Amino acid sequence: METLADIGEDELIRRLVRGLKQDASVIAGPGDDCAVVKGSRDLLLLKTDTVVEGVHFTPDTPGRLVGRKAMARVISDFAAMAATPRHALITLIAPPQTAVKRVLEVYAGLRAMAESFGVNIVGGETSTGSQLILTVSMTGTAPNQKWVSRNRARAGDALYVTGRLGGSIRGRHLRFHPRMQEAHWISRHLPVHAMMDISDGLAKDLPRLAAASGLGFSVDLPSLPRSPGCTPEQAWGDGEDYELLLAISARTPRKQLAAWHTAFPKLPLTRIGTLVEKHAAPLATPGGWEHFR
Amino acid sequence: METLADIGEDELIRRLVRGLKQDASVIAGPGDDCAVVKGSRDLLLLKTDTVVEGVHFTPDTPGRLVGRKAMARVISDFAAMAATPRHALITLIAPPQTAVKRVLEVYAGLRAMAESFGVNIVGGETSTGSQLILTVSMTGTAPNQKWVSRNRARAGDALYVTGRLGGSIRGRHLRFHPRMQEAHWISRHLPVHAMMDISDGLAKDLPRLAAASGLGFSVDLPSLPRSPGCTPEQAWGDGEDYELLLAISARTPRKQLAAWHTAFPKLPLTRIGTLVEKHAAPLATPGGWEHFR
Repeated sequence: METLADIGEDELIRRLVRGLKQDASVIAGPGDDCAVVKGSRDLLLLKTDTVVEGVHFTPDTPGRLVGRKAMARVISDFAAMAATPRHALITLIAPPQTAVKRVLEVYAGLRAMAESFGVNIVGGETSTGSQLILTVSMTGTAPNQKWVSRNRARAGDALYVTGRLGGSIRGRHLRFHPRMQEAHWISRHLPVHAMMDISDGLAKDLPRLAAASGLGFSVDLPSLPRSPGCTPEQAWGDGEDYELLLAISARTPRKQLAAWHTAFPKLPLTRIGTLVEKHAAPLATPGGWEHFR
Repeated sequence: METLADIGEDELIRRLVRGLKQDASVIAGPGDDCAVVKGSRDLLLLKTDTVVEGVHFTPDTPGRLVGRKAMARVISDFAAMAATPRHALITLIAPPQTAVKRVLEVYAGLRAMAESFGVNIVGGETSTGSQLILTVSMTGTAPNQKWVSRNRARAGDALYVTGRLGGSIRGRHLRFHPRMQEAHWISRHLPVHAMMDISDGLAKDLPRLAAASGLGFSVDLPSLPRSPGCTPEQAWGDGEDYELLLAISARTPRKQLAAWHTAFPKLPLTRIGTLVEKHAAPLATPGGWEHFR
Protein backbone atom coordinates (compact mmCIF):
# COMPACT_ATOMS: atom_id res chain seq x y z
CA MET A 1 0.00 0.00 0.00
CA GLU A 2 1.26 3.45 -0.96
CA THR A 3 2.04 5.49 2.16
CA LEU A 4 2.71 9.16 2.83
CA ALA A 5 6.38 8.25 3.23
CA ASP A 6 6.35 6.97 -0.37
CA ILE A 7 5.04 10.12 -2.00
CA GLY A 8 6.16 12.95 0.31
CA GLU A 9 4.60 16.29 1.11
CA ASP A 10 4.64 18.06 -2.26
CA GLU A 11 3.04 15.17 -4.16
CA LEU A 12 0.48 14.68 -1.38
CA ILE A 13 -0.57 18.32 -1.60
CA ARG A 14 -0.78 18.12 -5.40
CA ARG A 15 -3.21 15.21 -5.10
CA LEU A 16 -5.23 16.82 -2.33
CA VAL A 17 -5.93 20.08 -4.14
CA ARG A 18 -6.42 18.68 -7.65
CA GLY A 19 -9.76 19.93 -9.03
CA LEU A 20 -10.53 21.95 -5.90
CA LYS A 21 -13.60 24.12 -6.48
CA GLN A 22 -13.27 27.80 -5.60
CA ASP A 23 -15.56 30.73 -6.28
CA ALA A 24 -14.68 34.19 -7.60
CA SER A 25 -13.75 35.49 -4.14
CA VAL A 26 -10.52 33.45 -4.23
CA ILE A 27 -7.60 35.38 -5.70
CA ALA A 28 -4.83 32.96 -4.72
CA GLY A 29 -5.53 29.51 -3.26
CA PRO A 30 -3.07 26.80 -2.20
CA GLY A 31 0.54 27.23 -3.32
CA ASP A 32 1.73 30.57 -1.99
CA ASP A 33 2.82 31.60 1.50
CA CYS A 34 -0.73 32.70 2.31
CA ALA A 35 -4.06 32.39 0.53
CA VAL A 36 -5.53 35.67 -0.75
CA VAL A 37 -9.27 36.23 -0.83
CA LYS A 38 -11.40 39.29 -1.43
CA GLY A 39 -12.17 41.27 1.71
CA SER A 40 -15.66 42.42 2.46
CA ARG A 41 -17.45 45.27 4.15
CA ASP A 42 -19.22 42.81 6.46
CA LEU A 43 -17.80 41.73 9.77
CA LEU A 44 -15.31 38.91 9.49
CA LEU A 45 -15.77 35.79 11.64
CA LEU A 46 -12.96 33.37 12.48
CA LYS A 47 -13.04 29.85 13.88
CA THR A 48 -10.69 26.90 14.19
CA ASP A 49 -11.47 23.37 15.28
CA THR A 50 -9.65 20.04 15.47
CA VAL A 51 -10.50 16.34 15.31
CA VAL A 52 -8.02 13.85 16.72
CA GLU A 53 -7.78 10.10 16.07
CA GLY A 54 -8.66 8.23 19.24
CA VAL A 55 -10.67 11.19 20.59
CA HIS A 56 -13.14 12.27 17.87
CA PHE A 57 -12.88 9.24 15.60
CA THR A 58 -11.11 5.87 15.54
CA PRO A 59 -8.66 4.26 13.11
CA ASP A 60 -11.69 2.31 11.80
CA THR A 61 -13.82 5.38 11.02
CA PRO A 62 -14.19 5.67 7.23
CA GLY A 63 -11.98 8.51 5.95
CA ARG A 64 -14.86 10.31 4.25
CA LEU A 65 -16.72 10.55 7.55
CA VAL A 66 -13.62 11.83 9.35
CA GLY A 67 -13.29 14.65 6.83
CA ARG A 68 -17.01 15.30 6.81
CA LYS A 69 -17.03 15.65 10.59
CA ALA A 70 -13.98 17.93 10.75
CA MET A 71 -15.56 20.35 8.27
CA ALA A 72 -19.12 20.09 9.62
CA ARG A 73 -18.04 20.94 13.18
CA VAL A 74 -16.67 24.30 12.09
CA ILE A 75 -19.61 25.06 9.82
CA SER A 76 -21.84 24.30 12.81
CA ASP A 77 -20.09 27.08 14.75
CA PHE A 78 -20.85 29.57 12.00
CA ALA A 79 -24.45 28.40 12.06
CA ALA A 80 -24.50 29.04 15.81
CA MET A 81 -23.70 32.71 15.09
CA ALA A 82 -26.22 32.87 12.20
CA ALA A 83 -23.20 33.73 10.04
CA THR A 84 -21.99 32.46 6.66
CA PRO A 85 -18.76 30.41 6.37
CA ARG A 86 -16.59 31.36 3.38
CA HIS A 87 -12.91 30.28 3.32
CA ALA A 88 -11.18 27.33 4.98
CA LEU A 89 -7.61 26.26 5.66
CA ILE A 90 -6.93 22.57 6.38
CA THR A 91 -4.11 21.32 8.61
CA LEU A 92 -3.33 17.61 8.27
CA ILE A 93 -1.02 15.86 10.71
CA ALA A 94 -0.37 12.17 10.05
CA PRO A 95 2.21 9.46 10.69
CA PRO A 96 4.44 8.78 7.64
CA GLN A 97 3.06 5.23 7.42
CA THR A 98 -0.51 6.48 6.82
CA ALA A 99 -1.98 5.11 3.58
CA VAL A 100 -2.30 7.81 0.92
CA LYS A 101 -5.73 6.40 0.13
CA ARG A 102 -6.98 7.16 3.64
CA VAL A 103 -5.81 10.76 3.46
CA LEU A 104 -7.46 11.22 0.06
CA GLU A 105 -10.71 9.82 1.46
CA VAL A 106 -10.52 12.22 4.40
CA TYR A 107 -10.10 15.09 1.95
CA ALA A 108 -12.97 13.87 -0.19
CA GLY A 109 -15.17 14.13 2.91
CA LEU A 110 -13.85 17.59 3.74
CA ARG A 111 -14.36 18.82 0.20
CA ALA A 112 -17.89 17.45 -0.22
CA MET A 113 -19.05 19.08 3.01
CA ALA A 114 -17.30 22.36 2.16
CA GLU A 115 -18.87 22.48 -1.28
CA SER A 116 -22.36 21.82 0.02
CA PHE A 117 -22.10 24.93 2.22
CA GLY A 118 -20.34 27.18 -0.30
CA VAL A 119 -17.03 27.06 1.58
CA ASN A 120 -13.79 27.53 -0.42
CA ILE A 121 -10.78 25.49 0.73
CA VAL A 122 -7.93 27.93 0.05
CA GLY A 123 -4.85 26.39 1.63
CA GLY A 124 -3.48 24.48 4.57
CA GLU A 125 -0.54 22.74 6.06
CA THR A 126 0.74 19.18 6.38
CA SER A 127 3.09 17.77 8.97
CA THR A 128 4.30 14.50 10.44
CA GLY A 129 2.89 13.43 13.81
CA SER A 130 2.12 10.34 15.86
CA GLN A 131 -1.63 10.24 15.14
CA LEU A 132 -4.03 11.50 12.47
CA ILE A 133 -5.22 15.04 13.31
CA LEU A 134 -7.25 17.42 11.19
CA THR A 135 -7.61 21.11 11.99
CA VAL A 136 -10.04 23.25 10.00
CA SER A 137 -9.68 27.03 10.29
CA MET A 138 -12.36 29.13 8.69
CA THR A 139 -13.39 32.69 8.02
CA GLY A 140 -16.93 33.82 7.39
CA THR A 141 -19.10 36.88 7.22
CA ALA A 142 -21.99 38.32 9.19
CA PRO A 143 -24.45 39.81 6.71
CA ASN A 144 -25.40 43.39 7.60
CA GLN A 145 -23.09 43.17 10.61
CA LYS A 146 -25.75 41.05 12.33
CA TRP A 147 -24.75 37.96 14.28
CA VAL A 148 -26.02 36.04 17.30
CA SER A 149 -23.58 35.86 20.22
CA ARG A 150 -23.91 33.63 23.25
CA ASN A 151 -23.64 36.42 25.80
CA ARG A 152 -26.68 38.64 25.31
CA ALA A 153 -29.17 36.43 27.15
CA ARG A 154 -31.36 37.95 29.86
CA ALA A 155 -32.79 36.53 33.09
CA GLY A 156 -36.19 35.05 32.29
CA ASP A 157 -35.28 34.07 28.72
CA ALA A 158 -36.73 30.76 27.58
CA LEU A 159 -34.23 28.04 26.61
CA TYR A 160 -34.88 25.97 23.51
CA VAL A 161 -33.00 23.25 21.63
CA THR A 162 -33.40 22.02 18.08
CA GLY A 163 -33.66 18.31 17.31
CA ARG A 164 -33.13 15.46 19.77
CA LEU A 165 -30.24 14.95 22.16
CA GLY A 166 -28.08 12.03 23.29
CA GLY A 167 -26.58 8.89 21.83
CA SER A 168 -24.67 10.73 19.12
CA ILE A 169 -21.77 8.29 19.57
CA ARG A 170 -23.91 5.64 17.80
CA GLY A 171 -23.27 7.49 14.53
CA ARG A 172 -24.76 10.96 14.38
CA HIS A 173 -21.48 12.53 15.51
CA LEU A 174 -20.12 11.53 12.08
CA ARG A 175 -23.19 12.27 9.97
CA PHE A 176 -24.88 15.33 11.48
CA HIS A 177 -25.89 18.18 9.20
CA PRO A 178 -24.95 21.63 10.51
CA ARG A 179 -28.08 23.63 11.44
CA MET A 180 -27.24 26.48 9.08
CA GLN A 181 -30.65 27.01 7.53
CA GLU A 182 -32.35 26.66 10.89
CA ALA A 183 -30.01 29.15 12.57
CA HIS A 184 -30.54 31.80 9.91
CA TRP A 185 -34.29 31.25 10.19
CA ILE A 186 -34.11 31.69 13.97
CA SER A 187 -32.06 34.87 13.60
CA ARG A 188 -34.63 36.33 11.18
CA HIS A 189 -37.86 35.17 12.82
CA LEU A 190 -37.37 34.87 16.57
CA PRO A 191 -36.27 37.38 19.26
CA VAL A 192 -33.12 35.34 19.94
CA HIS A 193 -30.74 36.78 22.57
CA ALA A 194 -28.08 34.05 22.61
CA MET A 195 -27.30 30.92 20.65
CA MET A 196 -24.59 28.24 20.44
CA ASP A 197 -24.17 24.77 19.03
CA ILE A 198 -24.13 21.90 21.51
CA SER A 199 -20.79 20.22 20.86
CA ASP A 200 -19.61 19.12 24.30
CA GLY A 201 -23.07 18.18 25.60
CA LEU A 202 -25.79 20.29 27.19
CA ALA A 203 -24.28 19.62 30.62
CA LYS A 204 -21.13 21.49 29.60
CA ASP A 205 -22.49 23.92 27.04
CA LEU A 206 -25.56 25.27 28.80
CA PRO A 207 -23.52 26.42 31.84
CA ARG A 208 -21.14 28.10 29.37
CA LEU A 209 -23.98 29.95 27.64
CA ALA A 210 -25.50 31.02 30.96
CA ALA A 211 -22.12 32.09 32.38
CA ALA A 212 -21.33 34.13 29.25
CA SER A 213 -24.37 36.28 30.06
CA GLY A 214 -23.69 36.28 33.82
CA LEU A 215 -26.75 34.11 34.46
CA GLY A 216 -27.78 30.80 35.98
CA PHE A 217 -30.31 28.36 34.55
CA SER A 218 -32.94 25.84 35.42
CA VAL A 219 -33.65 22.88 33.20
CA ASP A 220 -36.47 20.40 33.30
CA LEU A 221 -34.54 17.18 32.68
CA PRO A 222 -37.54 15.01 31.73
CA SER A 223 -38.56 17.59 29.12
CA LEU A 224 -35.32 17.20 27.13
CA PRO A 225 -36.03 15.94 23.60
CA ARG A 226 -34.27 12.58 23.50
CA SER A 227 -32.87 10.49 20.69
CA PRO A 228 -34.55 7.06 20.48
CA GLY A 229 -33.37 4.79 23.28
CA CYS A 230 -31.72 7.56 25.32
CA THR A 231 -32.32 8.41 28.96
CA PRO A 232 -32.77 12.03 30.10
CA GLU A 233 -29.30 11.76 31.63
CA GLN A 234 -27.82 10.83 28.26
CA ALA A 235 -29.65 13.68 26.54
CA TRP A 236 -28.16 15.98 29.19
CA GLY A 237 -24.63 14.59 29.33
CA ASP A 238 -23.72 13.10 25.95
CA GLY A 239 -21.62 15.28 23.64
CA GLU A 240 -21.53 15.94 19.92
CA ASP A 241 -25.19 16.59 19.23
CA TYR A 242 -24.42 19.71 17.16
CA GLU A 243 -27.96 20.90 17.73
CA LEU A 244 -28.64 24.58 18.48
CA LEU A 245 -29.18 25.85 22.02
CA LEU A 246 -30.93 29.22 22.11
CA ALA A 247 -32.27 31.75 24.57
CA ILE A 248 -35.25 33.75 23.37
CA SER A 249 -37.50 36.28 24.99
CA ALA A 250 -40.04 34.59 27.28
CA ARG A 251 -42.64 36.88 25.74
CA THR A 252 -42.22 35.46 22.24
CA PRO A 253 -45.72 35.17 20.75
CA ARG A 254 -46.95 31.59 20.24
CA LYS A 255 -47.57 32.41 16.59
CA GLN A 256 -43.88 33.16 16.00
CA LEU A 257 -42.90 29.85 17.58
CA ALA A 258 -45.55 28.01 15.60
CA ALA A 259 -43.98 29.32 12.38
CA TRP A 260 -40.93 27.11 13.13
CA HIS A 261 -43.01 24.00 12.71
CA THR A 262 -44.20 25.20 9.32
CA ALA A 263 -40.63 25.99 8.22
CA PHE A 264 -39.09 22.79 9.62
CA PRO A 265 -41.91 20.26 10.02
CA LYS A 266 -39.56 17.34 10.75
CA LEU A 267 -37.31 19.01 13.31
CA PRO A 268 -38.58 19.69 16.83
CA LEU A 269 -37.84 22.96 18.61
CA THR A 270 -38.30 22.20 22.28
CA ARG A 271 -38.46 24.42 25.34
CA ILE A 272 -36.13 22.88 27.95
CA GLY A 273 -35.88 25.51 30.67
CA THR A 274 -35.23 29.10 31.68
CA LEU A 275 -32.29 31.40 32.31
CA VAL A 276 -32.35 32.83 35.82
CA GLU A 277 -30.38 35.29 37.92
CA LYS A 278 -26.95 33.93 38.81
CA HIS A 279 -27.62 33.37 42.48
CA ALA A 280 -30.77 31.35 41.93
CA ALA A 281 -29.75 27.70 42.39
CA PRO A 282 -28.85 26.06 39.09
CA LEU A 283 -29.58 22.44 38.32
CA ALA A 284 -26.23 20.87 39.05
CA THR A 285 -26.08 17.65 37.08
CA PRO A 286 -22.57 16.53 36.26
CA GLY A 287 -21.74 15.31 32.75
CA GLY A 288 -20.81 16.55 29.33
CA TRP A 289 -17.49 16.32 27.63
CA GLU A 290 -14.43 18.30 28.67
CA HIS A 291 -11.02 17.80 27.14
CA PHE A 292 -7.98 16.81 29.27
CA ARG A 293 -10.01 15.56 32.26
CA MET B 1 2.94 19.23 39.45
CA GLU B 2 -0.41 20.53 38.26
CA THR B 3 -1.38 18.88 34.96
CA LEU B 4 -3.99 19.60 32.29
CA ALA B 5 -5.95 16.63 33.64
CA ASP B 6 -6.14 18.42 37.02
CA ILE B 7 -7.65 21.67 35.74
CA GLY B 8 -9.58 20.66 32.60
CA GLU B 9 -10.31 22.56 29.42
CA ASP B 10 -12.42 25.48 30.68
CA GLU B 11 -10.01 26.48 33.43
CA LEU B 12 -7.05 26.08 31.04
CA ILE B 13 -8.63 28.46 28.54
CA ARG B 14 -9.44 30.95 31.29
CA ARG B 15 -5.78 31.04 32.29
CA LEU B 16 -4.54 31.22 28.70
CA VAL B 17 -6.60 34.22 27.66
CA ARG B 18 -6.38 36.21 30.89
CA GLY B 19 -5.15 39.74 30.10
CA LEU B 20 -4.98 39.07 26.37
CA LYS B 21 -4.30 42.32 24.48
CA GLN B 22 -6.59 43.10 21.56
CA ASP B 23 -6.98 46.24 19.48
CA ALA B 24 -10.17 48.00 18.41
CA SER B 25 -10.68 45.73 15.40
CA VAL B 26 -11.75 42.88 17.71
CA ILE B 27 -15.50 42.83 18.34
CA ALA B 28 -15.69 39.41 20.01
CA GLY B 29 -12.59 37.44 21.02
CA PRO B 30 -12.35 34.05 22.75
CA GLY B 31 -15.55 32.67 24.30
CA ASP B 32 -18.12 32.49 21.52
CA ASP B 33 -18.56 29.98 18.70
CA CYS B 34 -16.46 32.16 16.39
CA ALA B 35 -14.38 35.28 16.89
CA VAL B 36 -15.75 38.43 15.25
CA VAL B 37 -13.43 41.08 13.87
CA LYS B 38 -13.98 44.10 11.70
CA GLY B 39 -13.76 43.41 7.99
CA SER B 40 -11.79 45.61 5.70
CA ARG B 41 -11.81 46.85 2.14
CA ASP B 42 -8.32 45.43 1.62
CA LEU B 43 -7.68 41.92 0.40
CA LEU B 44 -7.79 39.33 3.13
CA LEU B 45 -4.88 36.90 3.52
CA LEU B 46 -5.15 33.55 5.31
CA LYS B 47 -2.47 31.19 6.57
CA THR B 48 -2.22 28.25 8.95
CA ASP B 49 0.88 26.52 10.24
CA THR B 50 1.72 23.83 12.78
CA VAL B 51 4.59 22.89 15.05
CA VAL B 52 4.77 19.34 16.38
CA GLU B 53 6.78 18.02 19.32
CA GLY B 54 9.49 15.70 18.05
CA VAL B 55 9.47 17.38 14.63
CA HIS B 56 9.81 21.15 15.12
CA PHE B 57 10.86 21.15 18.77
CA THR B 58 11.69 18.65 21.51
CA PRO B 59 10.24 17.99 24.97
CA ASP B 60 13.29 19.92 26.29
CA THR B 61 12.67 23.07 24.24
CA PRO B 62 11.67 25.90 26.61
CA GLY B 63 7.93 26.54 26.30
CA ARG B 64 8.38 30.23 25.51
CA LEU B 65 10.53 29.38 22.51
CA VAL B 66 8.00 26.78 21.29
CA GLY B 67 5.25 29.42 21.31
CA ARG B 68 7.53 32.05 19.85
CA LYS B 69 8.42 29.77 16.97
CA ALA B 70 4.82 28.72 16.24
CA MET B 71 3.73 32.35 15.97
CA ALA B 72 6.84 33.62 14.17
CA ARG B 73 6.56 30.99 11.41
CA VAL B 74 3.15 32.27 10.39
CA ILE B 75 4.13 35.92 10.66
CA SER B 76 7.07 35.05 8.40
CA ASP B 77 4.62 33.88 5.73
CA PHE B 78 2.80 37.20 5.85
CA ALA B 79 6.16 38.95 5.54
CA ALA B 80 6.86 36.82 2.45
CA MET B 81 3.77 38.35 0.80
CA ALA B 82 4.66 41.87 2.03
CA ALA B 83 1.32 41.72 3.85
CA THR B 84 0.28 42.62 7.41
CA PRO B 85 -0.84 39.90 9.86
CA ARG B 86 -3.86 40.88 11.98
CA HIS B 87 -5.85 38.15 13.77
CA ALA B 88 -4.78 34.72 15.01
CA LEU B 89 -6.48 31.55 16.26
CA ILE B 90 -4.46 29.09 18.34
CA THR B 91 -5.06 25.33 18.38
CA LEU B 92 -3.40 23.48 21.23
CA ILE B 93 -3.26 19.70 21.32
CA ALA B 94 -1.58 18.13 24.36
CA PRO B 95 -1.55 14.94 26.41
CA PRO B 96 -3.60 15.22 29.62
CA GLN B 97 -0.44 14.72 31.69
CA THR B 98 1.19 17.87 30.29
CA ALA B 99 2.17 20.32 33.04
CA VAL B 100 -0.07 23.39 33.07
CA LYS B 101 3.09 25.46 33.58
CA ARG B 102 4.51 24.30 30.25
CA VAL B 103 1.34 25.22 28.38
CA LEU B 104 1.27 28.66 30.00
CA GLU B 105 4.91 29.21 28.99
CA VAL B 106 4.09 28.19 25.41
CA TYR B 107 1.27 30.75 25.38
CA ALA B 108 3.50 33.43 26.87
CA GLY B 109 5.83 32.92 23.90
CA LEU B 110 2.93 33.04 21.44
CA ARG B 111 1.52 36.18 22.99
CA ALA B 112 4.80 38.08 23.18
CA MET B 113 5.55 37.42 19.51
CA ALA B 114 1.97 38.26 18.48
CA GLU B 115 2.05 41.54 20.38
CA SER B 116 5.35 42.61 18.89
CA PHE B 117 3.83 42.37 15.39
CA GLY B 118 0.42 43.85 16.22
CA VAL B 119 -1.35 40.48 15.91
CA ASN B 120 -4.57 39.94 17.95
CA ILE B 121 -5.13 36.44 19.31
CA VAL B 122 -8.92 36.12 19.03
CA GLY B 123 -9.71 32.49 19.77
CA GLY B 124 -8.67 28.91 19.34
CA GLU B 125 -9.27 25.33 20.25
CA THR B 126 -7.86 22.81 22.72
CA SER B 127 -7.92 19.05 22.48
CA THR B 128 -6.31 15.93 23.90
CA GLY B 129 -3.66 14.18 21.82
CA SER B 130 -0.56 12.02 22.16
CA GLN B 131 1.99 14.80 21.66
CA LEU B 132 2.16 18.58 22.03
CA ILE B 133 1.04 20.29 18.82
CA LEU B 134 0.40 23.98 18.17
CA THR B 135 -1.43 25.26 15.11
CA VAL B 136 -1.59 28.98 14.44
CA SER B 137 -4.15 30.19 11.88
CA MET B 138 -3.99 33.81 10.89
CA THR B 139 -5.68 36.43 8.76
CA GLY B 140 -4.01 39.55 7.45
CA THR B 141 -4.43 42.34 4.95
CA ALA B 142 -2.69 43.48 1.80
CA PRO B 143 -2.58 47.28 1.89
CA ASN B 144 -3.90 48.83 -1.34
CA GLN B 145 -4.55 45.32 -2.66
CA LYS B 146 -0.80 45.00 -3.24
CA TRP B 147 1.00 41.78 -2.33
CA VAL B 148 3.99 39.80 -3.57
CA SER B 149 3.19 36.29 -4.82
CA ARG B 150 5.69 33.58 -5.60
CA ASN B 151 4.48 32.95 -9.15
CA ARG B 152 5.14 36.15 -11.10
CA ALA B 153 8.86 35.58 -11.66
CA ARG B 154 10.27 35.87 -15.19
CA ALA B 155 13.14 34.08 -16.93
CA GLY B 156 16.29 36.10 -16.39
CA ASP B 157 15.22 37.42 -12.98
CA ALA B 158 18.00 37.66 -10.43
CA LEU B 159 17.64 35.55 -7.27
CA TYR B 160 18.53 37.07 -3.92
CA VAL B 161 18.33 35.94 -0.30
CA THR B 162 18.37 37.95 2.90
CA GLY B 163 20.66 37.05 5.77
CA ARG B 164 22.78 33.90 6.04
CA LEU B 165 21.70 30.30 5.51
CA GLY B 166 22.31 26.95 7.19
CA GLY B 167 22.77 25.60 10.69
CA SER B 168 19.46 26.95 11.96
CA ILE B 169 19.03 23.80 14.06
CA ARG B 170 21.72 25.15 16.41
CA GLY B 171 19.17 27.65 17.70
CA ARG B 172 18.03 30.18 15.13
CA HIS B 173 14.99 28.05 14.25
CA LEU B 174 13.65 28.99 17.70
CA ARG B 175 14.80 32.60 17.84
CA PHE B 176 14.52 34.00 14.30
CA HIS B 177 12.83 37.34 13.78
CA PRO B 178 10.33 37.36 10.88
CA ARG B 179 11.62 39.60 8.04
CA MET B 180 8.53 41.81 8.09
CA GLN B 181 10.21 45.21 7.86
CA GLU B 182 12.63 43.95 5.23
CA ALA B 183 9.85 42.44 3.10
CA HIS B 184 7.81 45.64 3.11
CA TRP B 185 10.93 47.59 2.21
CA ILE B 186 11.61 45.21 -0.71
CA SER B 187 8.04 45.51 -1.92
CA ARG B 188 8.29 49.31 -1.89
CA HIS B 189 11.80 49.81 -3.21
CA LEU B 190 12.72 46.94 -5.52
CA PRO B 191 11.12 45.56 -8.73
CA VAL B 192 10.32 42.26 -6.97
CA HIS B 193 8.46 39.69 -9.10
CA ALA B 194 8.26 36.82 -6.61
CA MET B 195 9.09 36.26 -2.96
CA MET B 196 8.77 33.54 -0.32
CA ASP B 197 10.24 32.70 3.05
CA ILE B 198 12.75 29.85 3.18
CA SER B 199 11.20 27.44 5.68
CA ASP B 200 12.03 24.00 4.28
CA GLY B 201 15.50 24.94 3.00
CA LEU B 202 16.61 26.53 -0.26
CA ALA B 203 16.92 23.05 -1.84
CA LYS B 204 13.15 22.55 -1.43
CA ASP B 205 11.88 26.09 -1.57
CA LEU B 206 13.77 27.47 -4.56
CA PRO B 207 12.44 24.71 -6.88
CA ARG B 208 8.95 25.52 -5.55
CA LEU B 209 9.35 29.22 -6.32
CA ALA B 210 10.72 28.49 -9.80
CA ALA B 211 8.03 25.89 -10.54
CA ALA B 212 5.26 28.28 -9.42
CA SER B 213 6.34 30.61 -12.25
CA GLY B 214 6.93 27.74 -14.71
CA LEU B 215 10.69 28.34 -14.62
CA GLY B 216 13.97 26.59 -13.84
CA PHE B 217 16.91 28.08 -11.96
CA SER B 218 20.66 28.08 -11.69
CA VAL B 219 22.38 28.71 -8.39
CA ASP B 220 26.01 29.35 -7.65
CA LEU B 221 26.46 27.14 -4.58
CA PRO B 222 29.74 28.73 -3.34
CA SER B 223 28.08 32.16 -3.47
CA LEU B 224 25.41 31.25 -0.90
CA PRO B 225 25.67 33.44 2.20
CA ARG B 226 26.51 30.98 4.95
CA SER B 227 26.00 31.01 8.68
CA PRO B 228 29.30 30.74 10.59
CA GLY B 229 30.69 27.21 10.41
CA CYS B 230 28.33 26.03 7.65
CA THR B 231 29.30 24.43 4.35
CA PRO B 232 27.67 25.54 1.07
CA GLU B 233 25.77 22.22 1.15
CA GLN B 234 24.32 23.07 4.56
CA ALA B 235 23.35 26.56 3.39
CA TRP B 236 21.59 24.87 0.45
CA GLY B 237 19.94 21.96 2.25
CA ASP B 238 19.25 22.95 5.87
CA GLY B 239 15.70 24.06 6.67
CA GLU B 240 14.15 26.69 8.92
CA ASP B 241 16.20 29.73 7.94
CA TYR B 242 13.08 31.91 7.60
CA GLU B 243 15.05 34.28 5.41
CA LEU B 244 13.44 35.79 2.30
CA LEU B 245 14.06 34.39 -1.17
CA LEU B 246 13.22 36.87 -3.92
CA ALA B 247 13.31 37.21 -7.69
CA ILE B 248 13.86 40.73 -8.98
CA SER B 249 14.37 42.19 -12.42
CA ALA B 250 17.92 41.59 -13.65
CA ARG B 251 17.91 45.21 -14.80
CA THR B 252 17.50 46.57 -11.26
CA PRO B 253 19.77 49.63 -11.00
CA ARG B 254 22.75 49.22 -8.65
CA LYS B 255 21.62 52.31 -6.79
CA GLN B 256 18.32 50.67 -5.85
CA LEU B 257 20.16 47.63 -4.52
CA ALA B 258 22.66 49.79 -2.67
CA ALA B 259 19.77 51.44 -0.82
CA TRP B 260 19.17 48.10 0.94
CA HIS B 261 22.52 48.36 2.69
CA THR B 262 21.62 51.81 3.96
CA ALA B 263 18.24 50.60 5.21
CA PHE B 264 19.56 47.36 6.76
CA PRO B 265 23.29 47.80 7.32
CA LYS B 266 23.64 44.61 9.37
CA LEU B 267 21.70 42.24 7.11
CA PRO B 268 23.22 41.03 3.82
CA LEU B 269 21.12 40.83 0.65
CA THR B 270 23.01 38.42 -1.58
CA ARG B 271 22.63 37.48 -5.22
CA ILE B 272 22.65 33.68 -5.39
CA GLY B 273 21.61 32.86 -8.96
CA THR B 274 19.18 33.35 -11.82
CA LEU B 275 15.77 32.07 -12.92
CA VAL B 276 15.94 30.47 -16.37
CA GLU B 277 13.58 28.88 -18.88
CA LYS B 278 12.23 25.58 -17.64
CA HIS B 279 14.13 23.37 -20.04
CA ALA B 280 17.50 24.85 -19.24
CA ALA B 281 19.19 22.34 -16.92
CA PRO B 282 18.64 23.22 -13.26
CA LEU B 283 21.22 22.59 -10.61
CA ALA B 284 19.96 19.31 -9.13
CA THR B 285 21.31 19.15 -5.62
CA PRO B 286 19.25 16.98 -3.30
CA GLY B 287 18.41 18.22 0.17
CA GLY B 288 15.94 20.38 2.06
CA TRP B 289 13.21 19.28 4.37
CA GLU B 290 10.06 17.53 3.24
CA HIS B 291 7.45 16.16 5.62
CA PHE B 292 6.48 12.45 5.61
CA ARG B 293 9.60 11.23 3.73
